[in-house]
Amino acid sequence: MAFIDASERNIGFTFGGGRDPIAQISPGEPVRVRTQDCFAGRVRSVQDLPSQVCEFPFLNPVTGPLYVQGAQPGDTLAVHLIDLDPVGEVGFSATFPHFGALTGTDATAMLHPALEEVVWEYPLDPVARTVRFTARKAAGGAPPYTVDLPMRPMLGTIGVAPAGGETRMSIVPGAHGGNLDTPLIRAGTTVYLPVNVDGALLALGDGHALQGDGELCGVAVEVPMDVTLVVEVVTGISTPWPRLETDQRYGSIGVARPLEDAYRGSHRRLVDDLCAMTGLDPLDALQLVSQVGMARIGNVVDAEYTVVALINRALFDGEQAYQGAHDRLRAVARVS
Amino acid sequence: MAFIDASERNIGFTFGGGRDPIAQISPGEPVRVRTQDCFAGRVRSVQDLPSQVCEFPFLNPVTGPLYVQGAQPGDTLAVHLIDLDPVGEVGFSATFPHFGALTGTDATAMLHPALEEVVWEYPLDPVARTVRFTARKAAGGAPPYTVDLPMRPMLGTIGVAPAGGETRMSIVPGAHGGNLDTPLIRAGTTVYLPVNVDGALLALGDGHALQGDGELCGVAVEVPMDVTLVVEVVTGISTPWPRLETDQRYGSIGVARPLEDAYRGSHRRLVDDLCAMTGLDPLDALQLVSQVGMARIGNVVDAEYTVVALINRALFDGEQAYQGAHDRLRAVARVS
Amino acid sequence: MAFIDASERNIGFTFGGGRDPIAQISPGEPVRVRTQDCFAGRVRSVQDLPSQVCEFPFLNPVTGPLYVQGAQPGDTLAVHLIDLDPVGEVGFSATFPHFGALTGTDATAMLHPALEEVVWEYPLDPVARTVRFTARKAAGGAPPYTVDLPMRPMLGTIGVAPAGGETRMSIVPGAHGGNLDTPLIRAGTTVYLPVNVDGALLALGDGHALQGDGELCGVAVEVPMDVTLVVEVVTGISTPWPRLETDQRYGSIGVARPLEDAYRGSHRRLVDDLCAMTGLDPLDALQLVSQVGMARIGNVVDAEYTVVALINRALFDGEQAYQGAHDRLRAVARVS
Amino acid sequence: MAFIDASERNIGFTFGGGRDPIAQISPGEPVRVRTQDCFAGRVRSVQDLPSQVCEFPFLNPVTGPLYVQGAQPGDTLAVHLIDLDPVGEVGFSATFPHFGALTGTDATAMLHPALEEVVWEYPLDPVARTVRFTARKAAGGAPPYTVDLPMRPMLGTIGVAPAGGETRMSIVPGAHGGNLDTPLIRAGTTVYLPVNVDGALLALGDGHALQGDGELCGVAVEVPMDVTLVVEVVTGISTPWPRLETDQRYGSIGVARPLEDAYRGSHRRLVDDLCAMTGLDPLDALQLVSQVGMARIGNVVDAEYTVVALINRALFDGEQAYQGAHDRLRAVARVS
Repeated sequence: MAFIDASERNIGFTFGGGRDPIAQISPGEPVRVRTQDCFAGRVRSVQDLPSQVCEFPFLNPVTGPLYVQGAQPGDTLAVHLIDLDPVGEVGFSATFPHFGALTGTDATAMLHPALEEVVWEYPLDPVARTVRFTARKAAGGAPPYTVDLPMRPMLGTIGVAPAGGETRMSIVPGAHGGNLDTPLIRAGTTVYLPVNVDGALLALGDGHALQGDGELCGVAVEVPMDVTLVVEVVTGISTPWPRLETDQRYGSIGVARPLEDAYRGSHRRLVDDLCAMTGLDPLDALQLVSQVGMARIGNVVDAEYTVVALINRALFDGEQAYQGAHDRLRAVARVS
Repeated sequence: MAFIDASERNIGFTFGGGRDPIAQISPGEPVRVRTQDCFAGRVRSVQDLPSQVCEFPFLNPVTGPLYVQGAQPGDTLAVHLIDLDPVGEVGFSATFPHFGALTGTDATAMLHPALEEVVWEYPLDPVARTVRFTARKAAGGAPPYTVDLPMRPMLGTIGVAPAGGETRMSIVPGAHGGNLDTPLIRAGTTVYLPVNVDGALLALGDGHALQGDGELCGVAVEVPMDVTLVVEVVTGISTPWPRLETDQRYGSIGVARPLEDAYRGSHRRLVDDLCAMTGLDPLDALQLVSQVGMARIGNVVDAEYTVVALINRALFDGEQAYQGAHDRLRAVARVS
Repeated sequence: MAFIDASERNIGFTFGGGRDPIAQISPGEPVRVRTQDCFAGRVRSVQDLPSQVCEFPFLNPVTGPLYVQGAQPGDTLAVHLIDLDPVGEVGFSATFPHFGALTGTDATAMLHPALEEVVWEYPLDPVARTVRFTARKAAGGAPPYTVDLPMRPMLGTIGVAPAGGETRMSIVPGAHGGNLDTPLIRAGTTVYLPVNVDGALLALGDGHALQGDGELCGVAVEVPMDVTLVVEVVTGISTPWPRLETDQRYGSIGVARPLEDAYRGSHRRLVDDLCAMTGLDPLDALQLVSQVGMARIGNVVDAEYTVVALINRALFDGEQAYQGAHDRLRAVARVS
Repeated sequence: MAFIDASERNIGFTFGGGRDPIAQISPGEPVRVRTQDCFAGRVRSVQDLPSQVCEFPFLNPVTGPLYVQGAQPGDTLAVHLIDLDPVGEVGFSATFPHFGALTGTDATAMLHPALEEVVWEYPLDPVARTVRFTARKAAGGAPPYTVDLPMRPMLGTIGVAPAGGETRMSIVPGAHGGNLDTPLIRAGTTVYLPVNVDGALLALGDGHALQGDGELCGVAVEVPMDVTLVVEVVTGISTPWPRLETDQRYGSIGVARPLEDAYRGSHRRLVDDLCAMTGLDPLDALQLVSQVGMARIGNVVDAEYTVVALINRALFDGEQAYQGAHDRLRAVARVS
């Protein structure tokens, strides 16, 4: 299996923007891609404050762009995540000045000074599949609060060159994917992205060993990650906004502010898809999703917020989304 | 066990407002309360359009108010839901003009005419624990799309007399509870509500046999419900905004617009509670919730939206919320 | 002219709620109503911190309710403000903990501690029609920054008993009026409010000697006020959401969160009114308002935000809103 | 005076993105720039529906980029608008499918079909300084509603290459300026923009003969425009978000969703500027802006909404923003 490392020449900080592809990948052929963590590896201990060791806009590096053979504008790129392996023995999280859902930010401007910037180091236990949280601030002379949490690797950032000739920073989510920060983008999931330029120009990064719904403080348990993936180009179907699929579920990703608009967009497009797959009238599909739709908040901290709307694939009444791309890629994954 | 029926004299359409209590209930003594459906029983077939058969403000009837013995302002009322049994053989759902997340509303005003008003009838199968959806609009001559969905009974509306001398319509959610419309308020859950007046004046209604996250079209599978519940008065702890607890999880309910503010409020208060229970510093608690917090969208359709923020109770490090009220009430439930 | 004082027996802290009317007023007969300031007079120097001297929910007193003779549910109450005279020699403003647009609040919850609570005293000069701002915190040994600002008296709170049997605290704005906090409610303006109960039950308070757009910190230059007003009952026209009118302009008040929904609601209803007055098609009216509509932000700090959408009355093509109520009341004002 | 035409080689559809400058301009030397209308001239009669004659992403052409001599990253670009002259005899407006504040959009997704697409032609009278609105849909046999409206030329779109290596479509507003759509950007105004790359790469377009607050339907009275402007490079002051200044007022432009965040951002930065100019403590500046701040809604329809927060320059206590750039450019304008 081809391996693409995360050396300086292989990473960037934008989606789109004229960087030459670092590699070509072929539909149906699994590839292993290493990603740096969102700090570009500069946080190495709890003394390394991100606002001091990192430098705008060199945040949230993505490995890529990867040129996908055969991908043409108007197609859909299906990216199946076979495996996500955190690299190394620790992850880091932090509060970052004026970033997060419970602090004034550049977008939701307040007059408060920034919350204190603190870094947490999470030792990873790959056998027990846990990460260990230890409080930074002990209360009195008591031993610090510590707890082992389940490891749930996910990919924070995955996307392609945007439409309309745009170039977006890799920390921004949008219709092109990008920094979606939803825990549902994990091993076993297929992400569907628009193809806006020849070769799609896929890039990915921002691995999380664990992240809660909404990424409350703005930073997950950030780790370098080895991502094994396989792609397919679905022709004849365009995907202006991202979707995802697992063995059980099918979902639509909303990206917007305020958060209700992310909810609205994800659900509107899920209703559309349900109609397209089953022939249901839009009002019938609206009704059905009203009763069985699942909504998962991705992030409430980035430039745009994300919500994933999901239904069980069984509701498709035997039909397959994207001409069965997920199941085909899943089969590839099983033998890889 | 005492039974309180849903006859006209036992229902109202507000929380607070000077209606006399219909009954007194005693902490620790289970009681069975019947609730009408949100249409006050006026929708009896798919021909009964809610906008024609229902009349503002006589929507969303709640059974009550129930005077809770011993409840004093500043206390917390713990309401444990032992059992939720849909009454009857069918539930109804509908689109309602200018109501729901994917239509212009009085609050999110648009220039579009209303979506078509349609009623769906859901036969209930209490043995299989399913409700049956059948599409109203057949495509061509094909047999209509139909599917059995899991029955997941929940209570849409539960609350007490509001603070500040306010009276709120029962269709409005708020700090007093009310029309929270979250699927997490189901059998096995304890809801914690503020006590703002002597006796708390508990009322409940709006049973749903099934509801998706966000209640997309604004109407769930609406049913009359028999609700078996038991209460406890927790003294010495006030609860300005609602919380809930199950055997596994502890949660905080945010009620606000826009939806990110419901997310913010629920999570801010969950962080506060985690600090109070464990002695963690707020930044440590923020960090921990960032990685393991679960956010569940309740409704994105009512006068205020709702989000529930949850963590596993194990993070409380052996401490018990509300002096262990949930576990005590759960024990009562097991023997009732 | 009848005078209604602001003694304790004449004030309340809610709209609706069963308080007996303190007086009856007759359409066409001007009356003078004194209002307390929003602190209920408890802030008397910069040493009086509102969070210490005021007590929830005894904030934002309104004088009333006034029973309007002849007002029946379904009518519209037109309230013309003839004169607004600040009472006394000083006004006060303040920052209040967790209140305002640039601080975390109970609704937009953040993890920051509250901004410092500070009180400003504004001497009023009724001859020069100015109020004097003096900085509380001098920079170095320099004389403090001070500036005379124009006095622009306005009424922050005016409303009636809400629909649906609700009772709302006087600090909350809504369809019933209430704490709208828009500078456009000043002498010369007619406010149109719904009549939901017999006699409408008008109440008013929260005079501001001056307030900026949005009431940024949440508190204006707060003063007791003598309000001279005259009312008319408009039968045959209902007003579910408030409107206002001046000699030049006609406006619709939106009350909602997020702020774009206040914009949407105010404009949607202005488009409706323009259609009703002129016979324009909704799309033509939408187009016309798009080019000449004026939007004025009222508050971005209260329980709901407010936006006023306005057009010049000349666009009504000779027709008069509310059967000419404003012009009639204006004529009464001129001779009173 | 140099003239830059709006021929195909001189226009683009992005800010940033590697297009070569079409011209160099020198600080202090007025230049006249022609701009196409937002339809790229393709709407020539009311029969030309924008969704049919225009093609994404070739919307909202901007003339440029103009390389500003001496502008270096970290500087501020002051652009003073000397004169705005609509070109031609008519302007056009339209409803556009799923665009505007009172319709479901791609961002605020609804299930409604699009509102009808209609075009309005506005004859311009350069002598009377009016534009004529005529209703498209006559009611019955009556002569159509028609009215002359004041011409108030403004520039919808002005900006520079974005930070972080981004390229944004010209229809998007942001920290780089872009499609701000605020009526305050008119003759006599100086706009302050960040310089993110050598030469700043200024571009402008989207002239409006008239636009209401919020641009309700999403489209103003769109015209080609001759824009006479003069620039200055202010060194030593960076401007991460746009500001503007007139002879009387100083303002800060907020660009965000939801609309309250545009209000917050614009006001937070205005408070900062007031502190920087006067030495006021932030709380004193907050208080002062609370009483005299003016907020003007720009657009509530674009990818991000805009609000301008303004105060009178007199509050600067004799100090001059941006080292007096506005007054210097104004002096140039007077003699040009």
